[in-house]
Amino acid sequence: MLENIRIVLVNTTHPGNIGAVARAMKNMGLSDLCLVAPKLFPHEEAVARASGATDILEAAHQVDCLEQAIADCDLVVGTSARGRHIPWPLLSPRELGGVATSLQPGKRLAVVFGREDRGLTNEELHLCHHHVHIPTNPEFSSLNVAAAVQVIAYELRVALVEQVTTQPPQWGAQWDIDLANSDELERMFAHWEKTLVATEFLDPENPRQLMARLRRLFLRALPDKVEVNVMRGFLRTVDEKLAASQSAQSKGGQADV
Amino acid sequence: MLENIRIVLVNTTHPGNIGAVARAMKNMGLSDLCLVAPKLFPHEEAVARASGATDILEAAHQVDCLEQAIADCDLVVGTSARGRHIPWPLLSPRELGGVATSLQPGKRLAVVFGREDRGLTNEELHLCHHHVHIPTNPEFSSLNVAAAVQVIAYELRVALVEQVTTQPPQWGAQWDIDLANSDELERMFAHWEKTLVATEFLDPENPRQLMARLRRLFLRALPDKVEVNVMRGFLRTVDEKLAASQSAQSKGGQADV
Repeated sequence: MLENIRIVLVNTTHPGNIGAVARAMKNMGLSDLCLVAPKLFPHEEAVARASGATDILEAAHQVDCLEQAIADCDLVVGTSARGRHIPWPLLSPRELGGVATSLQPGKRLAVVFGREDRGLTNEELHLCHHHVHIPTNPEFSSLNVAAAVQVIAYELRVALVEQVTTQPPQWGAQWDIDLANSDELERMFAHWEKTLVATEFLDPENPRQLMARLRRLFLRALPDKVEVNVMRGFLRTVDEKLAASQSAQSKGGQADV
Repeated sequence: MLENIRIVLVNTTHPGNIGAVARAMKNMGLSDLCLVAPKLFPHEEAVARASGATDILEAAHQVDCLEQAIADCDLVVGTSARGRHIPWPLLSPRELGGVATSLQPGKRLAVVFGREDRGLTNEELHLCHHHVHIPTNPEFSSLNVAAAVQVIAYELRVALVEQVTTQPPQWGAQWDIDLANSDELERMFAHWEKTLVATEFLDPENPRQLMARLRRLFLRALPDKVEVNVMRGFLRTVDEKLAASQSAQSKGGQADV
């Protein structure tokens, strides 16, 4: 199961941290590392701090944006401090372990870690199904990124490998249909946005939190592939009706002249 | 309770590790650090890696041997790889958390961490009541000392401070908006059905499982009241566009006659 877990680091500044993350991952039996636009990589400091986990560094993928890093993942969890603008389904690291045990075989889990100085942006957090918060001293809450990876990877190892009891499985464990992956979900959200704008329900000049609310609603349901197809089929029907309406209105307008 | 926990580092070689330990301790709410014959301390690298936890470094005690570090402690736990010569009572980090919660008030717990390259000696381990082993990949089992402190301190914080439930996270438990009640959900589903029929996406003669799929998707997300209102607002917009389209088409039709 551990081989289906990807650690994603977004815009890491210090290469030493990347090395320390590789070491923590290998210590816990993880191997899939994806770097989103790291500042300095490869770098000798990364190798030094990896302390022998150079195979993880050498196999690491580099991509330009978070969307690419998670496109083939089925469940995406972003690390977050508390108190974001819109609350999102929040897990503890231990609950994340429980969720990982309930994934269908072969499903890929991504856990996303942000920049050293300011974590993940709201936009990046909204790409995630769940957020995970590592409990900390509220007066000194900023964990080193490798320390955060260490805690999460430890909980995942304990949940998936060690014989420790965890929570009962949640949604998706014994499901009849494959869960939709991130790419399919993103295309559904893009379709939603297009149709919402076309119906004038969403004003691009003043979008407020509408798409964030929709994302949160659907992501926490972990939609399966058929459900995504149903949703997109409905949106397509609305698109066609709107197109027919506009063409009829323009005809009607001409007739009035 | 956390103030009665001492972290003891034996013969640490790299001052950067001492700084990283101080940071991990302060992140988790620990403050009592004792250094047994560190190689280089104080040191600027320790300050740099402490990342603001300099109060822990400044208050750290330095002693010459482990016996001095633990003399006033009531329970001593040494970190250990498996497979020592003489088996010793062995805890997992989680079990250590349980032990910590069962200590009488005011009793002092020391957790002892060894050298970067070879851990604690057998003599040092025999000064300990229990050993604690952090589960690792057996093929790459040597944790960085600050990573080991991070895991132990995390488990101690979770056991002593955080209200950890064994239940899976309950969506909406601490939510900003009231969850929608059954009546509101039923009216949303009725609206969905009406609009789906109006758009001809749902054929009342052959409804298949469409409404069941929609119900299941939304119900398991436990929508809140605003999310239900957003959904109904969108459906209402679609209704209005359809009505306008039909009226325009019928006007268009009359003009053609």
